[in-house]
Amino acid sequence: MVTRTVDLRSDTVTKPSKAMRAAMANAEVDDDVLGYDPTAFRFEMEMARIMGKEAALYVPSGTMGNLISVLVHCDIRGSEVILGDNSHIHIYENGGISTIGGVHPRTVKNNKDGSMDIDLIEAAIRDPRMAICYPTTRLICLENTHANSGGKCLPVEYIDKVGELATKHRLKLHIDGARIFNASVALGVPVHRLVQAADSVSVCLSKGLGAPVGTVIVGSKVFIAKAKTLRKTLGGGMRQVGVLCAAALVAVQENVSKLEGDHKNAKTFAEGLNKIKGLKVDIDSVETNIVYFDILEGANITSQELCKNVEEHGILLMPESSSRIRIVLHYQISEHDVQYTLSCIKQAVTGVPDANGVQ
Amino acid sequence: MVTRTVDLRSDTVTKPSKAMRAAMANAEVDDDVLGYDPTAFRFEMEMARIMGKEAALYVPSGTMGNLISVLVHCDIRGSEVILGDNSHIHIYENGGISTIGGVHPRTVKNNKDGSMDIDLIEAAIRDPRMAICYPTTRLICLENTHANSGGKCLPVEYIDKVGELATKHRLKLHIDGARIFNASVALGVPVHRLVQAADSVSVCLSKGLGAPVGTVIVGSKVFIAKAKTLRKTLGGGMRQVGVLCAAALVAVQENVSKLEGDHKNAKTFAEGLNKIKGLKVDIDSVETNIVYFDILEGANITSQELCKNVEEHGILLMPESSSRIRIVLHYQISEHDVQYTLSCIKQAVTGVPDANGVQ
Amino acid sequence: MVTRTVDLRSDTVTKPSKAMRAAMANAEVDDDVLGYDPTAFRFEMEMARIMGKEAALYVPSGTMGNLISVLVHCDIRGSEVILGDNSHIHIYENGGISTIGGVHPRTVKNNKDGSMDIDLIEAAIRDPRMAICYPTTRLICLENTHANSGGKCLPVEYIDKVGELATKHRLKLHIDGARIFNASVALGVPVHRLVQAADSVSVCLSKGLGAPVGTVIVGSKVFIAKAKTLRKTLGGGMRQVGVLCAAALVAVQENVSKLEGDHKNAKTFAEGLNKIKGLKVDIDSVETNIVYFDILEGANITSQELCKNVEEHGILLMPESSSRIRIVLHYQISEHDVQYTLSCIKQAVTGVPDANGVQ
Amino acid sequence: MVTRTVDLRSDTVTKPSKAMRAAMANAEVDDDVLGYDPTAFRFEMEMARIMGKEAALYVPSGTMGNLISVLVHCDIRGSEVILGDNSHIHIYENGGISTIGGVHPRTVKNNKDGSMDIDLIEAAIRDPRMAICYPTTRLICLENTHANSGGKCLPVEYIDKVGELATKHRLKLHIDGARIFNASVALGVPVHRLVQAADSVSVCLSKGLGAPVGTVIVGSKVFIAKAKTLRKTLGGGMRQVGVLCAAALVAVQENVSKLEGDHKNAKTFAEGLNKIKGLKVDIDSVETNIVYFDILEGANITSQELCKNVEEHGILLMPESSSRIRIVLHYQISEHDVQYTLSCIKQAVTGVPDANGVQ
Repeated sequence: MVTRTVDLRSDTVTKPSKAMRAAMANAEVDDDVLGYDPTAFRFEMEMARIMGKEAALYVPSGTMGNLISVLVHCDIRGSEVILGDNSHIHIYENGGISTIGGVHPRTVKNNKDGSMDIDLIEAAIRDPRMAICYPTTRLICLENTHANSGGKCLPVEYIDKVGELATKHRLKLHIDGARIFNASVALGVPVHRLVQAADSVSVCLSKGLGAPVGTVIVGSKVFIAKAKTLRKTLGGGMRQVGVLCAAALVAVQENVSKLEGDHKNAKTFAEGLNKIKGLKVDIDSVETNIVYFDILEGANITSQELCKNVEEHGILLMPESSSRIRIVLHYQISEHDVQYTLSCIKQAVTGVPDANGVQ
Repeated sequence: MVTRTVDLRSDTVTKPSKAMRAAMANAEVDDDVLGYDPTAFRFEMEMARIMGKEAALYVPSGTMGNLISVLVHCDIRGSEVILGDNSHIHIYENGGISTIGGVHPRTVKNNKDGSMDIDLIEAAIRDPRMAICYPTTRLICLENTHANSGGKCLPVEYIDKVGELATKHRLKLHIDGARIFNASVALGVPVHRLVQAADSVSVCLSKGLGAPVGTVIVGSKVFIAKAKTLRKTLGGGMRQVGVLCAAALVAVQENVSKLEGDHKNAKTFAEGLNKIKGLKVDIDSVETNIVYFDILEGANITSQELCKNVEEHGILLMPESSSRIRIVLHYQISEHDVQYTLSCIKQAVTGVPDANGVQ
Repeated sequence: MVTRTVDLRSDTVTKPSKAMRAAMANAEVDDDVLGYDPTAFRFEMEMARIMGKEAALYVPSGTMGNLISVLVHCDIRGSEVILGDNSHIHIYENGGISTIGGVHPRTVKNNKDGSMDIDLIEAAIRDPRMAICYPTTRLICLENTHANSGGKCLPVEYIDKVGELATKHRLKLHIDGARIFNASVALGVPVHRLVQAADSVSVCLSKGLGAPVGTVIVGSKVFIAKAKTLRKTLGGGMRQVGVLCAAALVAVQENVSKLEGDHKNAKTFAEGLNKIKGLKVDIDSVETNIVYFDILEGANITSQELCKNVEEHGILLMPESSSRIRIVLHYQISEHDVQYTLSCIKQAVTGVPDANGVQ
Repeated sequence: MVTRTVDLRSDTVTKPSKAMRAAMANAEVDDDVLGYDPTAFRFEMEMARIMGKEAALYVPSGTMGNLISVLVHCDIRGSEVILGDNSHIHIYENGGISTIGGVHPRTVKNNKDGSMDIDLIEAAIRDPRMAICYPTTRLICLENTHANSGGKCLPVEYIDKVGELATKHRLKLHIDGARIFNASVALGVPVHRLVQAADSVSVCLSKGLGAPVGTVIVGSKVFIAKAKTLRKTLGGGMRQVGVLCAAALVAVQENVSKLEGDHKNAKTFAEGLNKIKGLKVDIDSVETNIVYFDILEGANITSQELCKNVEEHGILLMPESSSRIRIVLHYQISEHDVQYTLSCIKQAVTGVPDANGVQ
């Protein structure tokens, strides 16, 4: 009998807490498309303050947050954006910046830590004097933490340098900060300082922070004014959206402090997995709440089989490939869940029950 | 002292009811982007059933519902859509079908009742043999009720004829049914019958139905599968969206039956306004929940002045032009609110307090 | 036996003259994509001078000329253009401004003379304060002469007024001047004066002027610089294009003076057709080189049959519909060709040979 | 005194030959937009035959040829194309496939020989089952010869393998064959065999083949029919285009056989440059008509200075960077020009007159 669900598929799977549900039920709301929702207003003011930018805008998803940001910075036909070849925007957002926005992406190789070499970025910037056959570079995008590198953090010094490069070439800098609070906590750098060099940041509320829905984008007043029009165009304007903003505000207030625990659990998880014969984790890559582990050749089990096996014990994982699994920690995973999951995985991989015991 | 707010700016301004708030607070949810939110699933199944289509998809707004629908039907580069020159999609949705979707609009004149002459629609369909200099007509859009004509209803016989025309020319038919339930109630035709000829319909949940947020689009399974991908591209995919779907389900269950009252209140409002010296309403145009009224030349008050005056009595109106105001009824406006508002307007326009009395 | 071809399908069908062919054979050329073709340079300088604008650019077609012009003026995402509902850009250019350029068209009714009422144009301009749900109006397009109205001319006073309106609202004005020289000649107004109010004009070289290929666009230096980049993007940059520009220069030098003869022939044609029982021409509509004629109901012949019949006598016409034919005069049609064609048409329609005689 | 021009900037700079000029002057032409130009028709038939495809279409430039090809294969919104990160389409065509066509590019690293590793191509193909966050891969693009790798040739076995991969994944294969005849000649493989695996090829007529203007694209009848419509949309439809096609036909007939000489001259050039102290060429990379050479650090001259210096002797080169120059051979460069240029370069770099002598 399965008595619990330990959902490690992503940090997007958290259920709203009681406080969030109460906030939704009690939110003071009005029509936000007309510009009158007081809770949305308060939430956006608060997020602008926390992020150290002039203004903020609530949008339904991280994909829309990035799409709007790229399109606002690249609002003139013929624009090019420089971004990582392994970045979320390039790989997992349907190519929307091109297919919907007509922006040409120029990719630069992402290093293992999610950064791009600054000289490679500079080399990718188009010489405006050659405009006759070149698109015009208008934007650089960073991603922090960087999902496909396993949640590694870009340090503030690096971001500042990219910001200087952008300024030098009169470009804008956008940070896909879906998990920027994880980076801030792991680096010990206040989030507003971490994104100081950026012209815009998108911050996911429904990942580690645990809100049911939404992303917030921050930037200058002019940027947010343009973003608001584009949000309407894309269909992201919502009426009594205060119900969602109320939950998001709780999420920001309650859950930022819990991210450190997620990171600790991730480390524990990674170390535990590494002790299981047949599995391998690059411990050093685990800086925040994401753990990638590989099933070694001799282990005689595929990712899919392992996921299916532990699902019978109420544990949900998501296979990345036939020999690789990604696990994401979040505030609804306890230390006990970690130990329990390690036990189940060990038994599934080795066939031997763990001392910690799965009955 | 203002003791109440009578908000007649739009039917988008309703506050969520207690039942909706409770539903949000108690909704069973999961990650809907991964496809696992049970409440979103139930809601979409129910809406598909009610609308008589194979499948349904919840989206954040009516603008996104229409944008996705037009773009799915016009998914090949070089597509043209035929739509009313006074339609919501053409006038009030930022031109997104072109500026985001690259679809070329071909407008046909909207009659005063919101219809387009069928022979004019047919004349606007491009001859595919001339494709060398023509875009390809792929879609016809209707709007029911038709907002800019004051909420008039397109009868089922008309829609069926447009459907036949579409079928004859191998085109698709989309209905912007932001207020399709108002049309269904006013015409006395079941909503699934009313949209029978349509390949897709977008239905607003946050207008007359009173949900805090959202629109649902319905159509074939293939249409909805494509719509789901496009929703992700646009950034309309939301995580624990069941919190919103739960409220929307309450809205559909509780408020469809109240639309008839809104229509009655609109008639009362229109008749009352017509009795005020200096104002004029075309009574016959009031078929559903929208009332346009004009301030006659001798009245010595502008729309803006009138709106400001009654706002002091807790009444919110929205001026359409300097001599025209649009009022929209909804379930949070009572008969008493109607009488109260008429009194305030009369006093503002004529300077004479009404017998019904505003103290 | 057919001994001659009288080609009245369009003024695009002219064959290059001996002088043009010699000019092509002898043109001094270089790589124009690199910016070094001396003949292209001379031609563009000369066209800028004639049109009274700062700069000019040779492009392969009228469609590209209009497409580039609209896209340069509407280079920011979310732009709207106001243009005639019966204009060439809207009807015959594949909807490219939307399907390729993402520009939203807002049509205004074209009057029978090709104009749009100025108050209707003004009413169509979007209020920028409502930008949240509106695209941004950036451009007005006129067409002179107006093809679908039968080649009627927009007078300079009208164009100036539209220009004032554009200036007042900070919009640009583009003239599709495919046949602007016909308008200039018919109105007796120098072409540079006629387009004085315009920010850009596209002038077709391969219609009445008789060049084998090409259109020139004119405007400010900034406009042309942007146009050059966009020409490259669209693939309209050509290498030793001086061979075409040389022919175009001859066309401009030799053939402008012949347009008056074309207009006279058109009048003769129209009057002759009107005398044929069963045909009808609106004589007053014939201001330049285009003649539309209708086959009346009793005539017992369709457009297609009539075209086929006269083709046996070496005459090429193009049916517009089953009862309407458009004829376009050009410098390779002589007065004698006109009489000969009238005779053939008369015989085809009435069954009676004409006195002028077709042997 | 400069007595001759040796233009080595590109193979696009050739002047039309006497035979080409005569062909232009004598071409039988008609309106090709209406589909009646006999010379365009003959030329396209001949190119389809030579390239071994069903049909062909003349377009004004290589950029348009590639743009049309990519857009026809990717005609459904949400398409992705796989192409080399150093390919002409990605680097030098203004990003038009995205900024005009809304196609999302996914780049794969170009090897030094212009190829992309086949397993990297396969890894870049999107899994259609993940469509919710992925664009749909629809096309692979190769470039042969590959310009940025110095004109290296992709062998037929490699192309066939990429073709098999495309077929396996139901993708299309386009070859940017701007210099495909150079590849055919260098590899000793008939051009139709070389492109057998491709669904479409664009072939530049105004590079090594020496036509004044144009590119031809070839493919299936269905592909070319769609391409013709898109050519009209982009504004690439030209009226009496037979004048250009006539010259292009001469180019194909006369100049393919001269490419071998260009390649020999390139080798001679490369070897000669390598003997000049201070310069360096990677001889092995010179497979066709392109030579890149580097100025070594000790040489005390920049690219710009060297170009300026030899220009005084009637030689035109184009600097690639401050220490790198690209030279392109073509049929209007003789063996004597090569020796003369080597002498001038030697003198410029070393300060010592060459024995071959520049007086």
